[in-house]
Amino acid sequence: MEIVTLDLEGVLVPEIWIAFAEKSGIEALKRTTRDEPDYHRLMQYRMDILREHGFKLSDIQNVIANIKPLEGAKEFLDKLRELTQVIILSDTFSEFALPLMRQLGYPTIFCNSLVIDESGMLSDIRMRTENGKKKAVEALKAIGFRVFASGDSYNDLAMIREADGGCLFRAPENILKSERDLSLVTEYDDLLEKIKAFING
Amino acid sequence: MEIVTLDLEGVLVPEIWIAFAEKSGIEALKRTTRDEPDYHRLMQYRMDILREHGFKLSDIQNVIANIKPLEGAKEFLDKLRELTQVIILSDTFSEFALPLMRQLGYPTIFCNSLVIDESGMLSDIRMRTENGKKKAVEALKAIGFRVFASGDSYNDLAMIREADGGCLFRAPENILKSERDLSLVTEYDDLLEKIKAFING
Repeated sequence: MEIVTLDLEGVLVPEIWIAFAEKSGIEALKRTTRDEPDYHRLMQYRMDILREHGFKLSDIQNVIANIKPLEGAKEFLDKLRELTQVIILSDTFSEFALPLMRQLGYPTIFCNSLVIDESGMLSDIRMRTENGKKKAVEALKAIGFRVFASGDSYNDLAMIREADGGCLFRAPENILKSERDLSLVTEYDDLLEKIKAFING
Repeated sequence: MEIVTLDLEGVLVPEIWIAFAEKSGIEALKRTTRDEPDYHRLMQYRMDILREHGFKLSDIQNVIANIKPLEGAKEFLDKLRELTQVIILSDTFSEFALPLMRQLGYPTIFCNSLVIDESGMLSDIRMRTENGKKKAVEALKAIGFRVFASGDSYNDLAMIREADGGCLFRAPENILKSERDLSLVTEYDDLLEKIKAFING
């Protein structure tokens, strides 16, 4: 019995913070883990900016609702869910993911969550567990699943390597260079074929 | 971060073998684990009957496609998936579940699978793991989820007791008598309220 675990941002939807910065016009929110490697500090920086601009969670969700999944992502996911089970493993927050999940037909997603204060503003983050993606694959294997994993980022590598099968999807040059043993796929149809081969193999 | 695990048959859809026996007119398929407690022997009995009647998997799936989810189940599940993550935990087979999952909007389901021979007939069953429902709840807790579970049958009790919260849903009299400490819900709206209270509690 097989299951597929997929990264969200860069695989099915655009990078949420980048897209949000563009839609909202707040350039300062384009800062990423490349600029600030400490994730908790980066999130504190982002939450401070959102507060300065008076953005409540509901405002943010309204902006995210206008971010579209990547072209072909919904169709790919529909075909995949007809074929096998799918869980999206992401380091984003469920409150941000919701408007996108709605557009993708509510696939199951394992991610983190936000703490919202009484005024509706973001006040903290709550990580479900450390190394969430790798641990989720381990847990799925422990209950009898053969797991296929795919993603595009450094935080997907442990998940892909822990899985029984997998590949990179539209990964950037630096990852392709450092992870030469992992295969790369750039189109949804090819990813679907790779998953079919895994299921039948 | 919360997740809800739900039994399938009796909670979201009718008992599949009973409904199949009725739709197909094969009375002998109404035999259940009450008549034959050994599940593997019961399944062998069912597979023999299907073969006698010349029923291939595709024929069975066509019949199952005409079985409707329970009244209100889709609407309940839609509301629940807007609210939190959901995984259906079932002892049925993915090949039987598929036509029903399609009608329910492809929620994620963890179940078992069938072995199909070259003529398209059922030849064996493949259990993903023993005590699959309880183990799935354990695995979800291990990766940081608070789990709410609900079901109607004996094979749901370990899952409900392992979860952080839960209740019986439309359970029969004998279970209500033996499990007096578990609360019972019979309507989807009440189940949704119970889950909301769990999430907020």
